[in-house]
Amino acid sequence: MKLATLKNGRRDGVLVVVNRTLTHCQKVPSIASTLQDALDHWDTAEGKLREIYNAMNRGELQAAQTFNPAQCHSPLPRAYQWADGSAYINHVELVRRARGAELPPSFWTEPLMYQGGSDSFLGPRDPITVSSEEWGVDLEAEVAVITDDVPMGTTPEQAKNHIRLIMLVNDVSLRNLIPTELAKGFGFFQSKPSSAFSPVAITPDELGRDWRDGKVHRPLTVSINSTLFGHPDAGQDMTFSFPQLIAHAAKTRNLEAGSILGSGTVSNKQGDLYGSSIINGGVGYCCLAEVRMYETIEKGKPQTGFLKFGDSVKIEMFDNNGQSLFGAIEQQVQPNAE
Amino acid sequence: MKLATLKNGRRDGVLVVVNRTLTHCQKVPSIASTLQDALDHWDTAEGKLREIYNAMNRGELQAAQTFNPAQCHSPLPRAYQWADGSAYINHVELVRRARGAELPPSFWTEPLMYQGGSDSFLGPRDPITVSSEEWGVDLEAEVAVITDDVPMGTTPEQAKNHIRLIMLVNDVSLRNLIPTELAKGFGFFQSKPSSAFSPVAITPDELGRDWRDGKVHRPLTVSINSTLFGHPDAGQDMTFSFPQLIAHAAKTRNLEAGSILGSGTVSNKQGDLYGSSIINGGVGYCCLAEVRMYETIEKGKPQTGFLKFGDSVKIEMFDNNGQSLFGAIEQQVQPNAE
Repeated sequence: MKLATLKNGRRDGVLVVVNRTLTHCQKVPSIASTLQDALDHWDTAEGKLREIYNAMNRGELQAAQTFNPAQCHSPLPRAYQWADGSAYINHVELVRRARGAELPPSFWTEPLMYQGGSDSFLGPRDPITVSSEEWGVDLEAEVAVITDDVPMGTTPEQAKNHIRLIMLVNDVSLRNLIPTELAKGFGFFQSKPSSAFSPVAITPDELGRDWRDGKVHRPLTVSINSTLFGHPDAGQDMTFSFPQLIAHAAKTRNLEAGSILGSGTVSNKQGDLYGSSIINGGVGYCCLAEVRMYETIEKGKPQTGFLKFGDSVKIEMFDNNGQSLFGAIEQQVQPNAE
Repeated sequence: MKLATLKNGRRDGVLVVVNRTLTHCQKVPSIASTLQDALDHWDTAEGKLREIYNAMNRGELQAAQTFNPAQCHSPLPRAYQWADGSAYINHVELVRRARGAELPPSFWTEPLMYQGGSDSFLGPRDPITVSSEEWGVDLEAEVAVITDDVPMGTTPEQAKNHIRLIMLVNDVSLRNLIPTELAKGFGFFQSKPSSAFSPVAITPDELGRDWRDGKVHRPLTVSINSTLFGHPDAGQDMTFSFPQLIAHAAKTRNLEAGSILGSGTVSNKQGDLYGSSIINGGVGYCCLAEVRMYETIEKGKPQTGFLKFGDSVKIEMFDNNGQSLFGAIEQQVQPNAE
């Protein structure tokens, strides 16, 4: 099943069911007015939503409107919980190596996770507005899941059954604000502005065999200014599965329905700078920081710049037949008009 | 004006207006069903809510029901944003001194703030449930404000006008999980389980002259197992005002209506261990960690233990006449039944 949220002038937008090929959508006010509403009552809503979805895919719903991702909010325009893991340890290891630090062995057994802000997500086609290019604007292409209610102390084995929906994320990062902020010891705040999510959230069964071991086994495609920048496999080198990330987040607290858990920047382990970029036959990267780390390690300093005003990024995932699974996140960096 | 949220079996409870002396309350379904609902439309809701409030205080609302804080959720049972500052630098300085570290000079000019989780707050009388006493359960008594929509780049001067409500908080902390978690560099997650807020949220005008300079100039009263543990003045030694904290949080993002900003643990600068505890005539503390830091600095190691199963904490603030302003947070530590 595929769900989206259309902008309608209200804070939470309006929930629509989207057909499998993302051409049409249908409002479902008698089932749920918003995605959070559906998640709050998933047990009763899911079956009814699936009936609509199946009817749409069979071409039986003549009233359905054309689906336009440009009219979408993020599936949850605002959420109560956004916790972002850092499950691709290759990414973390490169960060460390670039600054000459060792990776603590515990990083292979204990997930890294930061508490994100969730009150003002960007729509998938909304601009990334920043006050200054000097902040070092970077994308981070990731996969995320939405859970139902997860009780405190849930195990990874139990957590599997709490995953309701899957999305893509652009976890926008302000790289030049990170060192000072992390040095203060309390984690990210200003350096992680609002994130954007894919137009469509899908249930795990939509991925068929590509959803297994609590991971999404598909390449994540990233372009910058219309040039392919990366397509690493999101199922490869993911040290911690989504169920493990959920269990980590729920160790000392309940997670309420609609909680979003992110994978961290997707990153595949590759040989070196010259083997890793797309142009050299590598799978490329899901953030600019990663190529800059390779450059730092192998050339002494970073050479690729961060995003500038006017630059655009595109994040998408396709099935085996080239069909977009979630629709595309497409964002342009723009100055904040204060 | 005073507002509260009664538990009613739904995730967001039901909004009530509470009279000034906290004896009666009144549901207001024709104005707003929940506090988030009122905050989403504050411009139209505020005046109507104030009419009810004023009528209640004049004794004109015969239909009002008895107000029982034990029936309360936190004013926002779940929220979209919970950002907690650390505005009492005395507290931060003691933490550092206890571990032999210097306070970076920037800590006096740049607020410390962590991104909290906001999906599953505790009610003001709900137990603090933890799986293990060994986690080092501590209270942190604080003041917090709720904002309306705050645009990215808002200045402290502008931020003043975005404060809609004030509450008290118990920012429960798991001290023994903090060192490992902070060492990973991404801030708190498991070490900051669900927070609890006071039964009642009040508009700043309720504080009269005690609300000035963007600070609450009243003592915050903390008891542990019914013994007074602290009553430091929340307006004293607060290095960063609420408008400064809001501007910090909004530097790179919009904050949406209903965002909660906390002050950090209230802490007054005092002489030494023997002058700071209540029993010695000091103003005491708003968390156990603080007396343990004094003990570490002056006696070589901490002597006071953290909270054990069955221990209770009470956090309250009174006006000049001894009237409780927000009602009391009263919580007992209990084992999590997994």
